This record gives sequence, structure tokens and C-alpha cells, in this order.
Amino acid sequence: MRKWSPRTDLALESALIAEQEQGGKVEGINIKEEEKEQTKVTTVQISEGAERITGRKAGHYVTIESADLRQSDSSRHAAISRVVAEEIRLFIKGAELPQTASCLVAGLGNDLITPDSLGPRVTDRLIVTNHLFKLHPEHVQTGYRPVSAISPGVMGMTGIETGDILLGLIEREKPDFLIVIDALASRSIERLNATIQMTDTGIQPGAGIGNRRKEISRQTAGIPVIAIGIPTVIDAATVTRDAVEMVMKHLEEKSGRADQEWKKSFLGNIGLLNEEEKHQLITDVLTPAGLNMIVTPKEADLFIHGAAAVVSSALNEALHDRPPEETRSFFAG
Amino acid sequence: MRKWSPRTDLALESALIAEQEQGGKVEGINIKEEEKEQTKVTTVQISEGAERITGRKAGHYVTIESADLRQSDSSRHAAISRVVAEEIRLFIKGAELPQTASCLVAGLGNDLITPDSLGPRVTDRLIVTNHLFKLHPEHVQTGYRPVSAISPGVMGMTGIETGDILLGLIEREKPDFLIVIDALASRSIERLNATIQMTDTGIQPGAGIGNRRKEISRQTAGIPVIAIGIPTVIDAATVTRDAVEMVMKHLEEKSGRADQEWKKSFLGNIGLLNEEEKHQLITDVLTPAGLNMIVTPKEADLFIHGAAAVVSSALNEALHDRPPEETRSFFAG
Amino acid sequence: MRKWSPRTDLALESALIAEQEQGGKVEGINIKEEEKEQTKVTTVQISEGAERITGRKAGHYVTIESADLRQSDSSRHAAISRVVAEEIRLFIKGAELPQTASCLVAGLGNDLITPDSLGPRVTDRLIVTNHLFKLHPEHVQTGYRPVSAISPGVMGMTGIETGDILLGLIEREKPDFLIVIDALASRSIERLNATIQMTDTGIQPGAGIGNRRKEISRQTAGIPVIAIGIPTVIDAATVTRDAVEMVMKHLEEKSGRADQEWKKSFLGNIGLLNEEEKHQLITDVLTPAGLNMIVTPKEADLFIHGAAAVVSSALNEALHDRPPEETRSFFAG
Amino acid sequence: MRKWSPRTDLALESALIAEQEQGGKVEGINIKEEEKEQTKVTTVQISEGAERITGRKAGHYVTIESADLRQSDSSRHAAISRVVAEEIRLFIKGAELPQTASCLVAGLGNDLITPDSLGPRVTDRLIVTNHLFKLHPEHVQTGYRPVSAISPGVMGMTGIETGDILLGLIEREKPDFLIVIDALASRSIERLNATIQMTDTGIQPGAGIGNRRKEISRQTAGIPVIAIGIPTVIDAATVTRDAVEMVMKHLEEKSGRADQEWKKSFLGNIGLLNEEEKHQLITDVLTPAGLNMIVTPKEADLFIHGAAAVVSSALNEALHDRPPEETRSFFAG
Repeated sequence: MRKWSPRTDLALESALIAEQEQGGKVEGINIKEEEKEQTKVTTVQISEGAERITGRKAGHYVTIESADLRQSDSSRHAAISRVVAEEIRLFIKGAELPQTASCLVAGLGNDLITPDSLGPRVTDRLIVTNHLFKLHPEHVQTGYRPVSAISPGVMGMTGIETGDILLGLIEREKPDFLIVIDALASRSIERLNATIQMTDTGIQPGAGIGNRRKEISRQTAGIPVIAIGIPTVIDAATVTRDAVEMVMKHLEEKSGRADQEWKKSFLGNIGLLNEEEKHQLITDVLTPAGLNMIVTPKEADLFIHGAAAVVSSALNEALHDRPPEETRSFFAG
Repeated sequence: MRKWSPRTDLALESALIAEQEQGGKVEGINIKEEEKEQTKVTTVQISEGAERITGRKAGHYVTIESADLRQSDSSRHAAISRVVAEEIRLFIKGAELPQTASCLVAGLGNDLITPDSLGPRVTDRLIVTNHLFKLHPEHVQTGYRPVSAISPGVMGMTGIETGDILLGLIEREKPDFLIVIDALASRSIERLNATIQMTDTGIQPGAGIGNRRKEISRQTAGIPVIAIGIPTVIDAATVTRDAVEMVMKHLEEKSGRADQEWKKSFLGNIGLLNEEEKHQLITDVLTPAGLNMIVTPKEADLFIHGAAAVVSSALNEALHDRPPEETRSFFAG
Repeated sequence: MRKWSPRTDLALESALIAEQEQGGKVEGINIKEEEKEQTKVTTVQISEGAERITGRKAGHYVTIESADLRQSDSSRHAAISRVVAEEIRLFIKGAELPQTASCLVAGLGNDLITPDSLGPRVTDRLIVTNHLFKLHPEHVQTGYRPVSAISPGVMGMTGIETGDILLGLIEREKPDFLIVIDALASRSIERLNATIQMTDTGIQPGAGIGNRRKEISRQTAGIPVIAIGIPTVIDAATVTRDAVEMVMKHLEEKSGRADQEWKKSFLGNIGLLNEEEKHQLITDVLTPAGLNMIVTPKEADLFIHGAAAVVSSALNEALHDRPPEETRSFFAG
Repeated sequence: MRKWSPRTDLALESALIAEQEQGGKVEGINIKEEEKEQTKVTTVQISEGAERITGRKAGHYVTIESADLRQSDSSRHAAISRVVAEEIRLFIKGAELPQTASCLVAGLGNDLITPDSLGPRVTDRLIVTNHLFKLHPEHVQTGYRPVSAISPGVMGMTGIETGDILLGLIEREKPDFLIVIDALASRSIERLNATIQMTDTGIQPGAGIGNRRKEISRQTAGIPVIAIGIPTVIDAATVTRDAVEMVMKHLEEKSGRADQEWKKSFLGNIGLLNEEEKHQLITDVLTPAGLNMIVTPKEADLFIHGAAAVVSSALNEALHDRPPEETRSFFAG
């Protein structure tokens, strides 16, 4: 489980904040917003020159947003899956990988903890062909590429850093590129179970729980890395901060005021804290009492089932150039 | 999944609030606090005369509190299980049921939704003997009583009210008493996954999600009913209200003040709202946005596994008068 | 888990044997064989007059045969599901039930034992509407009928006869007809996981393991009963008898002979035993040694997953008169 | 899943056959039979000189036999687990590994196929400490050794040879020894789910299904390898051959004769085939018809649950020199 940067997990927001602070378009940041299949797709490109101002590694960041991910609507899931497949293809193209390039997919996370099991459940549903290319190349139909898949587990269960397992495997098997799937910690109630985030800048397993582990990225692995994540958990402090923000906005709308004096009259000195300061205060109070729990919606079982179908179908479609009916895993009702 | 009364799910708190409002001991309310096996056990008895002032049905309410329930410590789980077994025996004795009285255990909830699966997982682990008494009475060793068990499912999956399934079965099978196990919605972060609640006043399945369903109680079933529940989920509004309360207490302690003026200076007009009003305001804001999610701690899978072992072991020990090594289900590490 | 009659689990075979013994068409037996969607469908109708000669209760028996059930081919699964849906509709029509008749579906079996979990897994995937008709009739779209579903568990886990749970529920809820789903014990290697059997003559839960339990049929329930079963287990004696038969047929074909003398020369006196005598001899030897195990193919997990999708989709399609995309549960790859 | 040598999976039997053929004790074969905790433990040591005559790699082979493994008796499971722990300790001692030597445990098999999931379920329950030694050595209590664990999956799901995943990991992480856990294909009904087999000669994953994969042994891994296996599946041909043998023995006992003439009179020419020839004939007939299924007892779910508890408890006890209550995973009822 991985946490993105402290203030926000979305490169998009970092970019917008940077523009706001600079008072306009910032050199080195490119934002593109589209709608595909009734799904919002935002692409942010950050150049090396804009790393400092955004606090983000240079690279591509794609966010696919749809509250339909939370529902059990199989036709919407199929549509979102097509969008994800298209974005994966763009990442592969961006990395200048040929159609025959071999791919290792790593499903990070603990398959015994429901909200952390996204990665292993995706790898369970992949069309895996690498061994056929090696052992029976004459039987592989055209259109397939060599795909292998691994669920390396989590350090608390294996005693080994996930990065070490993957890097050892990459060294030995030499795939041409790596796709990493992980469940993320959300920094906002609204994005929980409602966004799919992709990047070519890599991932840090376990970063979400406070221990920075070995980065898995092009720099460490020596091959292109595409990371795909879905926020499936959130901490109690974030739930609280978001709810307090919403209450304030609600009261502002009702009163028609939003100035400092008004904020103070409604929320006292706390009203004057900014978002990050509020989050810090709440964390500071909840954590020592053992109450800053990491939570997941009650229906996580259903959500993870659907999300794994969406992502695995997208991978099967994007990795293999075959008719969709062959590569699509179906969406259970 | 069942919700207790809106303000608090604990009869204990209702009783204490009543005493506070009346300025001392209230006629018809008896509170007893004990410590057994390093576990806090509070018994509240409410007489019919005190029903109105507490907002509670007359009867016995027992709360067993231990944060160790949240941990995977099998020796503490075994200790808590012994405490639960003793309280179940007291309820059976209180209902004047003989050692041979037959018992039906109903495990309410949805076994496909982790935090709602406590009931079915408990019934899965029970020592069931009712059919042996009927078909092979000569093979039943002394000390066992007739025990049957059912997991009736939830209305959304069966299309039938849980109460109707149970009442139909009781009518046909005529057990001498009923024990109902359910996962509850918590009204406080602190009690989540940390208390076991028992009462002889019955249960309303599904009440927690806003639809009041048919009550299952001595009045409707015609036999004594013992309800055992553990809060496993909480809504986002409660998380927020509890966190805001804690922040205020924290600031009070730091400033050494807690008067109204101070409260207003720190939390503005919101500081003046009472707990219930705060909860209502937050609910009113989050619910229309679809963000008043019902959540569960990330590690619900582990917790439910442990809690089901605690409760099923307690039932096996309390229902059958046999040596513990025969009736105890073990606590998996 | 249910076993059909000792010699064969197929009414079809009973009928054919009767015809063979009588030397031609038998009064009161009707056999029809069709192919639908590349799937063999055999319908046998037995009248009351032919009960004695076939050893079968009078009624309709349908057998749907396809080895594709054993594979993970979602398009073949969808085709077989359409065939099953059509046969269910014919049974409903045969019972003269109107489109609005309410249906209770009972998924028999133990969901903790993979090959016995077919029934519960089918009910998990049904579109259940009975509670909507009762509580929110204004929200039910046309085309749906009231459907409820129950997984009553097995007697060893509940302590109650499955028949009693169902009959109690039928008495209280008064559905217009009952559909019962169960995993069966196969009487032949070839049919294992490769046939779906349907009848309107009822079912005896647990009969397969030697204990005849209360019959669930139109006679006992007072409403039409449709039973749907798939053989998922087989005992070691049957595996052995079938294999020995096959070896004999193989040797016959190689030698071009099949007379008694030849049989004796190849299998000695055992060769002269008929199928049923061979089965009895093997059972007599294996059972006391504890080795007449009931077995299931290694891949039972995958098969049960697929078979539950086939049967639940067929039920959703047959019970509700709605467009297929609304009622079809999908077939996971 | 792994198959041992064609004629028998037990080194013990190979050794006995060799002795029988040689008419007495054979140089280079040592057999020791003991009973520990009511469990039969047989140790066979084969020297290099006896490799040819036994068809076995030189090394130690231990077989622990108890039909109680098939039952859900937690006190017997605990006893067997102590026996396994002792044998593991002897293997560790035999490899001259110090108490501080680090161990990697690999749980082979597919966790989605019940009878193949023994390995992954054992690793799920291990006390893993390797990361603590690396990251927080000051917190590790004395008595623990560095233990890591991995479930590498199966080639059909990963596209990578299991041996390659393990050898890559060993190269990178450099554990001092390797323990490999796997479910095996049985060559006898009687041993199915009733024996635990251990050896220091290594393992060939997937050999059971006809594809010889890369051996995992001291020779390939460069470190001592201890393999622990339990036969959980059997093929239909073996069931048949064993049953036919038993029928013949039964008839011999009844008739008091066992000479060739008698065998021919009862089983014809087939009676004259030896065990291996019978197996081959049956395999040849069943296989082309797709009926030589690999099967597992119906209750595989319960067995695998119990067997994983037995083996994981034994490993926790043998690997860490700590009081048993700390290292024992409990045996769920």
C-alpha cells in the first residue's frame, strides 16, 4: 500500500496549486483534460524543470475518475476498462516499446487483507504467456506478447523487501518493461475507490504506512516502469479533515460569506488553519490515542472484486493485440 | 448489521446520563462494574420504571471492553472468551433455563461482506448437536445440550425478512431459547472492534442501515432471546464527530480552559453545539454528497477471524457442560 | 449432496434399460433427444404406470450434457446457460405457473466444502426481488417476478434437517413454487462435472451419503418443486468400476471378441459379474478399509465457479422476463 | 504439485524392494522405523553406492504416517506437529547449520486450487523475522533466527519457472538454507492425506503433471534444501489399480489361495500383470478418453486447513528456539 505525497496524491492538484501560486501557466507543466466513455481522464506532464515547484518527479501522470467504479454496474466497468486499456497502450508507446516487448506485471499487496488485495487479484486474472514463448513458441498465436506475472507479497509476511524480490526477478528474467499494480492510501474521501492513477515515474511500496521502502522505478529497475494504483483506504484524520472542510463550505454557502472573520466566528481559531494544518492537528490528536485508524468502506469486498476485473481486463486488452473477446475477463454481476 | 439507539449504543451511557441529569442515583437503574481476566465488564440493569428516562427497554445489558480484541494475541483472546462464556452462562441462568434446554444460535449478517460476516463465521464454528439428540440420542455424551445453528443471510440477498426466517424456524423446531449474534454499527471510534455487547432485550436486524425491521425478542419469538454483538463498522460522520471532540478536549487540556467562551473562541459557533447536534450537522452535509460512508478498519479480515473465534469458543464452552479442551475452538495465530 | 438411484443417476438410462428388457418401446415412457446450442438435451417423461418398471417417480427428467462445462470457456458457458434457462421456462410452464408466480430458490449444500458449495454459490448470484414487491412495490419494474433465495446449510452444521428449514419457510412465506439447487454424487466418471440434471419429482437432501432425509417434493411442500443438480463428486468404487469396464471394452475391441468365455479369460470370474455386482464387490472391499473415499477433480474450485455462473445466469434469465443484459451474471475468465 | 518416482513415491518402498530383490540387507541402505507420539516415523538413508539399485538420489528420506492427519482432531494434530518439528530439527542439524543460520521457506503451489494450496497456506502462517533482523535488529528477542517466506505461484499463473523465481531470490538474498513445502501426487490411496514426507535431496516442481521442471536442490541452489511434502491428490488410474489389488487380496484371503492359476481364474490374464503393468494398462485406457482425472477427497478444504496448521506450527517451533506458546499456531476446530 502506497501513499502519494503528503499534501495530495494527485499530480494534477500539485500542478494546479503551482499554477495558482505562480498566477498562471507554469513552464514545464502541461495539463490535458478529456472525457472518454463518460469518464474523466486527466493527463499531467511535468518536466524536470518543474520538479521543484510541484514536488513531483518529472514524468507522465494520468488520472481516470469515475464514481461508477464504486458501483456493481458491469457495463460501466467494461467502459472504464476500455479507457484504462487505451491509456496503458499510450504509456507503452511513450516508452517506445515494440509490440513484441516482454512485460512483467507485479501485483503488490497482501491478499489476506481485502482492501490491500487489489494487486494479487489482478495478477490472478491475467493472460500469462511468457512460459509458452519459452517452452512452446510454435503454439503461440500471433498478437500475443510474452507476459509474466508475480504477486511478491508484503514485507511483513515475507521478511523481504518487495523491491528486492522484484529487482532480483528482473535481473534474472530480463523483461523489457514492468507494470506494477497497487492499492493506495487516499488523501481525500471523494477519490476513495473512485479513481485509477497511472504514472511512469515508479512507486515506493509501503510508503503509505510510514516506512519508505526501496523505490521501484526506471532508475532502480533499469527498464520502463508503469505504475497503476487505486486508492482503497483512507485514514481517520483525512476523513475528519475532509468532513470539516465540507461542513465549512456548506455553512459558507448558507451564510453567503467566506471571509476570515466569518470563518473564525464559525470554527474559531481552527477555522483559520489551512487544510494541511488542520490535517496535522487532527493526526497529532488521534494518533497517540491509537485512533487514527486506516479504514475502508464496508463493501470493500465487492469493490475490490470489480476493480480487479476492470484493471485485469484492461491489461489483457492492452498487452495483447488480439480480439477483445479473447482477452477480456468478464465482469461478474 | 444493527445500530443501537441514536445517541449512544451503550445502555451504560444512557444510564450514566440519566443519573447525571437527575443529580444522583436513579430508581430502577443498577450499574455494576467489574474486572475479570484484565477485562472490564459492566452490567446495567434497567427496570420497567426506568425505561422512559433511559430510552432503553427494561432488561440486562452487559458490556465487555478490551482493546486486546483488536490484536492477534491468542492468549488474550482465550481469556476474553472465558469472560464471555461466564456472562452467557449468567444470562442462561437468569432466564431460568435448565442444563438440558435446547438452544438455537442465529448468526446474522452477510458472509460475503467481511465486517458483516461475524454472525455466519461464529455459527460455522459451533458444536452442533441437535440432530444427534433427534437421530442418535444413544450416542450423545452427557454434558451436551441440543444446539442448532442457522445463518439466515440478509434481506438484500434472500428477499425475506431475517425475522421471518427465524420466527418460522422457531415455530417449527421449538428451541427453548435463542442466541443471536450480529455485527453492529459503532457510535464511537473507541468502541469499534473493542467491545462485546450482550443483552436479553432482543435485536432489530438491519436497524443500523435505517430500515427498522422486525424485532427479534422474547415478545415476538415467545422464548428467551440473548443478543451478542460486536461493533465492526462506523460511519464517516461519527468518525468526524469523535475526532472533533478529541481535538477540542486536547485543546482544552493545553489551554486549561473549557468554558463556553473558550469553546467559541476555538471552534466558533460549532463549538457550542452538543455532541448530537454536531453529529447531525456533519451527517446532513456528508450524506447528500454520498460521502457518509460506512467504514471498517483496513484489517477487518484479521479482526473478524479473531472475534469469531472468541465468541464461538465462548458459546461452545457456555452451552455444553463439558471439559474445555473438548468445546474450545482454538485461536489461530 | 444427493445421490440418485443406486444403479444409475439418470432417468434416461433407467428408461433405456426398461426398453431393452421389454424388447422395445414401453408404455408410459417417452424419450426425446435434441441438440440445442451444440449441447445434448434429453427429456424423459415417465407416467405413473411406468414407475415400477423404471424404479423412477413419475414426472419429467431433463439431462443437459456438455463436456464444455468442465472448461473455462465463457462463451460456451453462456450458450449452455441459455439452454438451461429455456428448460427452466418449460418446467415453469409445465407446472402452469403464471408470469407473476413467486419463486423461492433453495441452494442446498455446505459452502465450506468446495464440491458441495454449488447451491450456496448459485443463490449468492441471484437477482432477488421478493422484498421489493413487499416493501416498495412501486419501484419494481415490469417483467420481474417475486424471487427469494435461501441457503439453508447442511444438517451437520445446523443440527436441523434441511427439509424442515425449507418446509417451515414455505409454510410462512407461501411462495408459489420452489427451485432447489444441489451438487450430486455421480454414478459415472463420464458424467462428473459434465451434466446438468433437472426434474419436477423433487429431491432428498443428504441421500448421497447414506442417510435418507426428508424428501422435498410437491407432495411434502404442497407447491411445484423443480430440482436442478450437477454431479460434482464420485466415490472411489465407482471410479474403479468404470475404469475396469473401460479396460474390458478396450480389450474387447482389440481382440474383436466379447463373449462370456473371452470375458472369463481376461478378467476371470470377475469378468462375469455385471456392472452392479462389480460395483458392490469393490465397495465391500474398499469401505471397511476406509478407502471408499468420495473424491472430486483437483480443479473443483474452477469448475464450481463456472457452474454456479451457468446456473445462476439461467435462473435470472428464466425467472424474470427482462432483457438478458439485465439478468445475466457474467462469466469470469 | 510434484510426483515422486513412477513406481512408488516412498524411498522406503524402493529400499524394501531392493532388499527383497537382493535377498537381504543391501550395502548403502539404512532403514529405521520408530513410533513417536503414536505416529510412525520411518527414516531411510541411501548412500551414493545404492542410488542405482534404488533409483533414488543419495540422501535422507523421512516418512511420517498417521491417518489422524485426515481427521479434525486438534490434539492429534498438535502431537503430529511436534513430531514434524523434531524431524525438521534433525535435518537442520544434519546439514550442520548453526542456530543463527537464516532460512527461506518457499510454499509452492496454486492458492486458488484447494488441494494445491498447501504451500501458500503454510507460508501464510509462518513467523517471519528476516526484515526485523535487517531493519530493527535491536528489537529481535534472542532465540529467533532470520526467517523469510515466499509463495512463488505456479508457472501456469506466473509464466516463469518456479525454480527461476527461487534461484533468483536465493542469489540476491543469500539465505543459509531453503525449506520447500509442496502438495504431492500420491501413488497410493492409503497414503493420500495421511503421510508427511521429508527429504534433503530436493524437489522438482510440476513433475507430477508430466513436465519435468528445474530441480531445486543443494546442487542447483548452492545451499542445503529440505523438502516437505504431503500427497493431496491421486489420479483415477491409481485409485483403480489400488482398488483392484485390494479386491484380489480380499478374494485371496477368502479362498485361501494366491497362486498364479488362482489369480488367472479370478482376474483372467489381467490378474497376471504386476502392479506397474496394471497401472500402465489402466492409464493407457483412461487417458485418451480424458478420464484419467486427478482427484482429491471431497473434504480437501478441511484437510488442507489442518495440514497447513500442522506443518506451519512445526516450522515455527523448529526454526525458532522459543517457548512453544509463542511459536505455535493453533489448530482451529
